[in-house]
Amino acid sequence: MDFTAFDQWESEVRAYCRAFPTVFSSASNARQTDEEGRTYIDFFAGAGVLNFGHNNPRMKRAMIDFLAADGVAHSLDMYTTTKRDFITRFHDVILAPRGMDHRMQFTGPTGTNAVEAALKLARLVTGRREIVAFSHGFHGMTLGSLAATANEAFRKWAGVPLRDVVRLPYETAPGGKTALTDYAAALADSSSGVTAPAAFLVEAVQAEGGVNVASAQWLRDVAALAHDVGALFIVDDIQAGCGRTGSYFSFDGFGLDPDVITLAKGLGGYGTPIAMNLNKPEVDRHWSPGAHTGTFRGQGLSLVAGAAALDYFVDDTLMNEVAAKGAVMAQRLSAIAAEHPDRDWEVRGRGMMQALDVGDGALAKRVQALAFESGLLIGPCGPDGRVLKLIPPLTIGDADLAEGLDILAAAVEGAAA
Amino acid sequence: MDFTAFDQWESEVRAYCRAFPTVFSSASNARQTDEEGRTYIDFFAGAGVLNFGHNNPRMKRAMIDFLAADGVAHSLDMYTTTKRDFITRFHDVILAPRGMDHRMQFTGPTGTNAVEAALKLARLVTGRREIVAFSHGFHGMTLGSLAATANEAFRKWAGVPLRDVVRLPYETAPGGKTALTDYAAALADSSSGVTAPAAFLVEAVQAEGGVNVASAQWLRDVAALAHDVGALFIVDDIQAGCGRTGSYFSFDGFGLDPDVITLAKGLGGYGTPIAMNLNKPEVDRHWSPGAHTGTFRGQGLSLVAGAAALDYFVDDTLMNEVAAKGAVMAQRLSAIAAEHPDRDWEVRGRGMMQALDVGDGALAKRVQALAFESGLLIGPCGPDGRVLKLIPPLTIGDADLAEGLDILAAAVEGAAA
Amino acid sequence: MDFTAFDQWESEVRAYCRAFPTVFSSASNARQTDEEGRTYIDFFAGAGVLNFGHNNPRMKRAMIDFLAADGVAHSLDMYTTTKRDFITRFHDVILAPRGMDHRMQFTGPTGTNAVEAALKLARLVTGRREIVAFSHGFHGMTLGSLAATANEAFRKWAGVPLRDVVRLPYETAPGGKTALTDYAAALADSSSGVTAPAAFLVEAVQAEGGVNVASAQWLRDVAALAHDVGALFIVDDIQAGCGRTGSYFSFDGFGLDPDVITLAKGLGGYGTPIAMNLNKPEVDRHWSPGAHTGTFRGQGLSLVAGAAALDYFVDDTLMNEVAAKGAVMAQRLSAIAAEHPDRDWEVRGRGMMQALDVGDGALAKRVQALAFESGLLIGPCGPDGRVLKLIPPLTIGDADLAEGLDILAAAVEGAAA
Amino acid sequence: MDFTAFDQWESEVRAYCRAFPTVFSSASNARQTDEEGRTYIDFFAGAGVLNFGHNNPRMKRAMIDFLAADGVAHSLDMYTTTKRDFITRFHDVILAPRGMDHRMQFTGPTGTNAVEAALKLARLVTGRREIVAFSHGFHGMTLGSLAATANEAFRKWAGVPLRDVVRLPYETAPGGKTALTDYAAALADSSSGVTAPAAFLVEAVQAEGGVNVASAQWLRDVAALAHDVGALFIVDDIQAGCGRTGSYFSFDGFGLDPDVITLAKGLGGYGTPIAMNLNKPEVDRHWSPGAHTGTFRGQGLSLVAGAAALDYFVDDTLMNEVAAKGAVMAQRLSAIAAEHPDRDWEVRGRGMMQALDVGDGALAKRVQALAFESGLLIGPCGPDGRVLKLIPPLTIGDADLAEGLDILAAAVEGAAA
Repeated sequence: MDFTAFDQWESEVRAYCRAFPTVFSSASNARQTDEEGRTYIDFFAGAGVLNFGHNNPRMKRAMIDFLAADGVAHSLDMYTTTKRDFITRFHDVILAPRGMDHRMQFTGPTGTNAVEAALKLARLVTGRREIVAFSHGFHGMTLGSLAATANEAFRKWAGVPLRDVVRLPYETAPGGKTALTDYAAALADSSSGVTAPAAFLVEAVQAEGGVNVASAQWLRDVAALAHDVGALFIVDDIQAGCGRTGSYFSFDGFGLDPDVITLAKGLGGYGTPIAMNLNKPEVDRHWSPGAHTGTFRGQGLSLVAGAAALDYFVDDTLMNEVAAKGAVMAQRLSAIAAEHPDRDWEVRGRGMMQALDVGDGALAKRVQALAFESGLLIGPCGPDGRVLKLIPPLTIGDADLAEGLDILAAAVEGAAA
Repeated sequence: MDFTAFDQWESEVRAYCRAFPTVFSSASNARQTDEEGRTYIDFFAGAGVLNFGHNNPRMKRAMIDFLAADGVAHSLDMYTTTKRDFITRFHDVILAPRGMDHRMQFTGPTGTNAVEAALKLARLVTGRREIVAFSHGFHGMTLGSLAATANEAFRKWAGVPLRDVVRLPYETAPGGKTALTDYAAALADSSSGVTAPAAFLVEAVQAEGGVNVASAQWLRDVAALAHDVGALFIVDDIQAGCGRTGSYFSFDGFGLDPDVITLAKGLGGYGTPIAMNLNKPEVDRHWSPGAHTGTFRGQGLSLVAGAAALDYFVDDTLMNEVAAKGAVMAQRLSAIAAEHPDRDWEVRGRGMMQALDVGDGALAKRVQALAFESGLLIGPCGPDGRVLKLIPPLTIGDADLAEGLDILAAAVEGAAA
Repeated sequence: MDFTAFDQWESEVRAYCRAFPTVFSSASNARQTDEEGRTYIDFFAGAGVLNFGHNNPRMKRAMIDFLAADGVAHSLDMYTTTKRDFITRFHDVILAPRGMDHRMQFTGPTGTNAVEAALKLARLVTGRREIVAFSHGFHGMTLGSLAATANEAFRKWAGVPLRDVVRLPYETAPGGKTALTDYAAALADSSSGVTAPAAFLVEAVQAEGGVNVASAQWLRDVAALAHDVGALFIVDDIQAGCGRTGSYFSFDGFGLDPDVITLAKGLGGYGTPIAMNLNKPEVDRHWSPGAHTGTFRGQGLSLVAGAAALDYFVDDTLMNEVAAKGAVMAQRLSAIAAEHPDRDWEVRGRGMMQALDVGDGALAKRVQALAFESGLLIGPCGPDGRVLKLIPPLTIGDADLAEGLDILAAAVEGAAA
Repeated sequence: MDFTAFDQWESEVRAYCRAFPTVFSSASNARQTDEEGRTYIDFFAGAGVLNFGHNNPRMKRAMIDFLAADGVAHSLDMYTTTKRDFITRFHDVILAPRGMDHRMQFTGPTGTNAVEAALKLARLVTGRREIVAFSHGFHGMTLGSLAATANEAFRKWAGVPLRDVVRLPYETAPGGKTALTDYAAALADSSSGVTAPAAFLVEAVQAEGGVNVASAQWLRDVAALAHDVGALFIVDDIQAGCGRTGSYFSFDGFGLDPDVITLAKGLGGYGTPIAMNLNKPEVDRHWSPGAHTGTFRGQGLSLVAGAAALDYFVDDTLMNEVAAKGAVMAQRLSAIAAEHPDRDWEVRGRGMMQALDVGDGALAKRVQALAFESGLLIGPCGPDGRVLKLIPPLTIGDADLAEGLDILAAAVEGAAA
């Protein structure tokens, strides 16, 4: 394979390609194939984008038709029939059945743009400055969202102090059980040095942070505290949303009604970039037209593929599959962990985001390398990269899932030896 | 037409759709058609994205083929044959003929992501904090790039103080002729209160800022000052690059060798989102792998369409057309201005970014509205939106261009009356 | 009495004079006398400055002699015999007996200048930015120290965001028992969003914050954590130091060796302004000459009076008195509280800083007003001013102390009725 | 002489004492005497504090009387007869004759406290954040005032980014002639990236900055621009005020009516610390009681000496002397400069603040050292310390002045050789 172009002309900042040193030429559902014809089972799914598999045929068909018909591929935030279809479909399939009345705001098509917009809106609505974000949270790489991101591995490259964020421990971190109560007490005390924030920004499951799973009760406590102190409650559902945890939103059924929900990654269905915030009408009305813009808001191809992706949520078929396959994944990871009872490994996850925390970034890296050699793509995450995160396409076939888990088990054995 | 979905479910932040109150259903080269079959000549080109026209047939063909062949649509920054083709093509067509050795860094696919990455790199390389940006500059909407953006209409929504940017007047603004000299003197004086910045961030033509055109000499002065004080020289070529001004880069032939060049908008060719920074090797090597990431870096469809777009730069055909059509535009605008000699209107521009500054935002808005009624899409820009900016596709036919200019002339007459 | 000059020409910002609406003309030990000859027992001591009484005769004599002899009243930080005497005396009486090798840094003569210098030094030594300060802490009113001050009643006037301080609950605040452990855990976790601070800034007894008393163990825990993470341990002893709590430093005997100790208020003895930081040699050596300056550093009169004040610490006489009188104060306050068992009032303090927290700022204000009418000066403090703080001169006579406590008891009765 | 105490126990931050390596034991008018009996002519006057000489007899008498009578030495901002006397005297002697109706605000007794209070007030009144300060300005060492101070020699020790200040060149700096006009144009342009500030903070003569003298017209332009844009006009008169330039305020007769005037240094007369802001009633009324506090506000001794100092302004005697002696100083400096026509030295100043800019910090330092050896105290200032600043007591005798100038001339000759 010829890597010359990458070696000579691509930036040194490139990263994933270093862990997966081959050149991919095609992909289909849960498999990527390199130009020498070798296939890899994909347990990474483009960092959680490809919930519906690589090159999902239904979406592919819709996109080709759209292209052939000269649909409006790009028009900023003008009205198009394509956008109307998407909006209507999203309303009918996702919002209406849940009794949600959120407004859809298309931002620049990356998660970080969505988060930046959400934080602007929270500050605008409340006239306050600080955002409560949690340890191990990941919210993006531009300065506003990076301030909310917890991992020093990302923060340290900002080059300027990251400001205007108050950090609390996530439920599963040390102090996480008492932090909300203590923070509430401080907010009630005018001499505490702590004043009311504009918003609480939280993930129901922290993906990049190490697959940390919050309880419904804790999330309700966060939401209640937010509303008690006049702050917005924002759920960042960029990686955990769009079906990943077994329901469309990662917090479905938790009794939450977030003021803002950020969506991106899986929303476009095909890896077609799109990001959208869902804003409660009473906060959304604070926006002035054009207050937050961006060139690539709601691209035609993304809306077409994204609308097709919504078909998966018309009935429970896929979500039932997610529950079943997620259980298979969790059981297998538990079995792997059980073989090393002395190591204090932990299995965590919800739906088809499951993880094995091996407590050691170097070990996780060895597992990743061995798995790659055996034809499996996985990505470590969490502190020091010590957590093996499994996020295959939700549409992965049972055979591929089983084979992937076998490869993983062997890689863990090999690496731990 | 049915606007219900937008009115009920889309966010109040939507903006362009308010100036163009119809629902578009298809588009081709320089025309957008609404669902009632009415066509509009497009002098806006998706805010400068569609340099090669709506739904460019060559790119469309390439994208359909790519989709049909199950090319890798999404894979973060892994190596793919598609990315290799793009990188090689960009090197061969753009960089090599200019003797440029820049490294290509794919960022999240919006201009603001590219700018944020450039600023991080400048701060990393220099260990300094402040960025010099210019009055009327536009660089994006996330907190890092928004700090560099000048227009208060965008800045005021930040909700937090925008920091770490030093503002100088652009060459064409009051004080612009002497600002660099005075700033250099201050940098040389330890009691001036001014210390050396990490970078100078500049557009060769300020698009959003009102189509302000810098001279080659002034740009060379900025670059020279940057290097004298150990700062990076960054050209934001997001809107003016990719052929818009009559050459690939907006500064071709100016004798500049920027440390970083930011590209987005026109780079994807079809409205397919992509952003890329060109970093000199000696600055690029400061990056650590993964120091700036993003989910949608170098999407397959964007790389395919973007590679096809590079065909336009293999020879001078299109650029010669740009020169000719740009001259037609400038002459016509001058003629329009000449009919109102008392009004002090100004015509400005380079290549096919031409503008008529009517000195009055309300007047410009009336022109926009009348033009829309007559079938022409244009977007005001600049302070208070008083500048009518004409950025049709570079591929617009002569007849459409002439018709569009006629509509504009009439709209100006009507609005000015 | 004639208040015209104040009403017409003094700023509206004046405050204490509003609670004590009379014009004082002279003072002696624990009594202030107004121009109509009425005397007031002083339980406020100029906010903790007058530990040795108003117009202490010994210091007065020394100052008059110094003036008569044309001693150097003002000379910035030049060497004077007066400064040498003070430095030598402070070393011999305070530092040497404790085995302390701290260096003396004279700053501008206010507590806030001392704190600003200490924070600069901590940031200089560590190359870090953030300071850990505690809820209910008071450290000054200039922007650097105000950022560390907790009370929103002071913070809200900053006019700019107060930055670069991390807030933890003080031992006695909600969450105070677990905060250090949780914070230590976060510092050990690279994904917590928390990075190592430059210093921990703490008071052993929080005076302004409501007379909150930390345990020796908790202070040792703070110091240990500071050193574990490479941060400085700074004790702000501006109000609680100089004998107030029954020993020279408020933390004597606690097993602490702070990197920096800030002193002011009582240090000058007579109300003569002076502030001094005690820096461990290994941190002090990071200073460059003139890195932190100020016009009024170590004024002659302040050094003369301050040196005389040190005589009180040559033996235990005064400190024994403080213990005895402090016990009297605490007992009486407890008796007052005991008469209102339903009110949940709390008595707190150490040495001759004793307080009754009546849980209600309006009530405390009524007590203050009634006490004033009966000839007693006291100042509320703490959240919403709900804590009656008793800080009479350490030299107060037993009769005055008893009379003052009687007046207070009656005032509480009257106000609570 | 014994330096052991300083060498062993004083902080390394000490500075002036290094340039004047002796131990002073007494002082009188324009002479300081060391403990070996050697006298030095003082052309530094404690950095501009001792306008009325060391140990001014009139003030000394008043202070001894005050001490003997047990006047109230310290009582925060309570009403005292001493403060009433000072306020009344200041009103009668300074404000009333000028038709000024400013309110007097006593802050902590250092210049930096006064500046911090002024900036808070400006931000409070306007609801804005940024302060315009000028190149070469000096305003203090705490974080709020340090942000306004220009000299990197002081700024670099902040340890945190200094924020919320916009820097313009002073009239005499490169670009100073056009900066106000350009800044005004930028403020009028919503796309300039520049928004209206809370205040303009300026010195009429920059003392520490290098004895830069602004014209009355330029100061009026600053004031006019401030008021045009709704900002406060603040004159920092801490070093140049209290008679130094030949009138009480450094801007008397310039047609200015500043919103806030900061005073300190010379205000206390004897080196007794005090600082006071003069606030126009319409801005002062925005203060809430206690919004800016401080322990040592308006100390008894400082008010007594300060009131005595005001006697010098009852008639023109002293100010006429200042004019005459200032002319002598300027002439002599010009003569010195004239002997080195090739060196491009510059003489600058007003009243009895006169300076010789020798363009070379190392040379200035050698002059200082030689002068000290010959019995003269002078302090360099300005960029890199290249400006020899002469600020003897206004009360210096003609003989001492002449002798001091002779020593200086010889030292310059020696150093320049």
